[in-house]
Amino acid sequence: MTADLILYELAAEDPELRFSPHCWKTRMALAHKGLEATRIAWRLTDKDIIAFSGQGEVPVLVDRGEVITDSWKIACHIERTYPDRPSLFGGDDAVALAGFVNAWADAVLLPAISRIILVDIHGGLAPADKEYFRTSREKRLGQRLEDVVADREGHLSIFRNALAPLRRILKDAPYVSGEAPAYADYCVFGMFMWARSTSSIELVDAGDRVSEWRERLLDHFGGLARSSPRATRIGEAP
Amino acid sequence: MTADLILYELAAEDPELRFSPHCWKTRMALAHKGLEATRIAWRLTDKDIIAFSGQGEVPVLVDRGEVITDSWKIACHIERTYPDRPSLFGGDDAVALAGFVNAWADAVLLPAISRIILVDIHGGLAPADKEYFRTSREKRLGQRLEDVVADREGHLSIFRNALAPLRRILKDAPYVSGEAPAYADYCVFGMFMWARSTSSIELVDAGDRVSEWRERLLDHFGGLARSSPRATRIGEAP
Repeated sequence: MTADLILYELAAEDPELRFSPHCWKTRMALAHKGLEATRIAWRLTDKDIIAFSGQGEVPVLVDRGEVITDSWKIACHIERTYPDRPSLFGGDDAVALAGFVNAWADAVLLPAISRIILVDIHGGLAPADKEYFRTSREKRLGQRLEDVVADREGHLSIFRNALAPLRRILKDAPYVSGEAPAYADYCVFGMFMWARSTSSIELVDAGDRVSEWRERLLDHFGGLARSSPRATRIGEAP
Repeated sequence: MTADLILYELAAEDPELRFSPHCWKTRMALAHKGLEATRIAWRLTDKDIIAFSGQGEVPVLVDRGEVITDSWKIACHIERTYPDRPSLFGGDDAVALAGFVNAWADAVLLPAISRIILVDIHGGLAPADKEYFRTSREKRLGQRLEDVVADREGHLSIFRNALAPLRRILKDAPYVSGEAPAYADYCVFGMFMWARSTSSIELVDAGDRVSEWRERLLDHFGGLARSSPRATRIGEAP
């Protein structure tokens, strides 16, 4: 137990609802290391609260005064700083490859899921964040949020096809990292927690190997992820 | 040097032209291990020649009488059998993650590239293989080869977008596996060698980070890949 760790996590209107995919990577990584952090709810428009970190995004980890931003850098930091606890990567040779899995999750899964749940995310945000989220995302995507998710079924189908490499390796082992989960698993799992926290849309069928893998991770660490709050305003119609 | 290894590789009409992406994974893996094999040209319709392996695809490796099929199993076999030579994976923890990169190459890159070069592959095959290739592939794809590649520019664009995770990690390190290439790199590189051996189509722009990575691997092992034969009937119009 370490009382000296502080983690800033993105929160919805319900401050207990923490939904950022990257914050979930960090949450699972800390649990893997057996580290406990004081978790602070942070909203998209609370830029001043994390101004000390020199940037405007979460997760932000403060480890006994040292400030670390970016979920990947946080994972590397806790791996290096707490070498006697269970390893997040296994060996040095696995770090670059875990980075590939993380890049795949961020570059492929994240945009694919956003086209499914964007309006649901918006629906759960605090009032001040709603306006900021709509304006910034619509500017970035060049479309109204509602138009982005208009063809939900089509985007769901694209997302499920994109899971092919994951489905393929889960044929041979229960986790991306092999016999036990590690950071590469959490990078992908964070994307599923993002959707689970904000939307009632079921991303994968129950019979899908990927669903079975997700269920195992929901139960991991004593059900840490499964017992976490979900959106109350789920499934909001576009 | 080991004179006891025999590798069956897929060959074009020109028996020196070895173009299979999976055979290229094995070729690079053997070079990484410093192992030399007697390489035998095999054609798609030569099923009887590899019937001893109990299946009909290459690569097939015969290691002092032991028969190993499937490029992934071959990589695991030579890693296990020759532990004193440079490791293909690094540590045990990296094996599952290299498997993910391999699954990504097979499930995402291979079908994307095939939609670009299918007619070029056909053009380089030996006469007997041409008919077999056309019939089997057209049955599988439900389209004439020429129709599959009709929108080459569109498929090229899809392929280049699919490289996003690779492009992302090559920002931080020269190879997928980190500071030096290893089996995960060869899994992806095999796909590029497949295209390079059969087609004049340039898969990536010279300014693309992925192109720089490919150039480094072309030069690796004393230019093994760069000096290998390419198709003479390249760029055949659909």
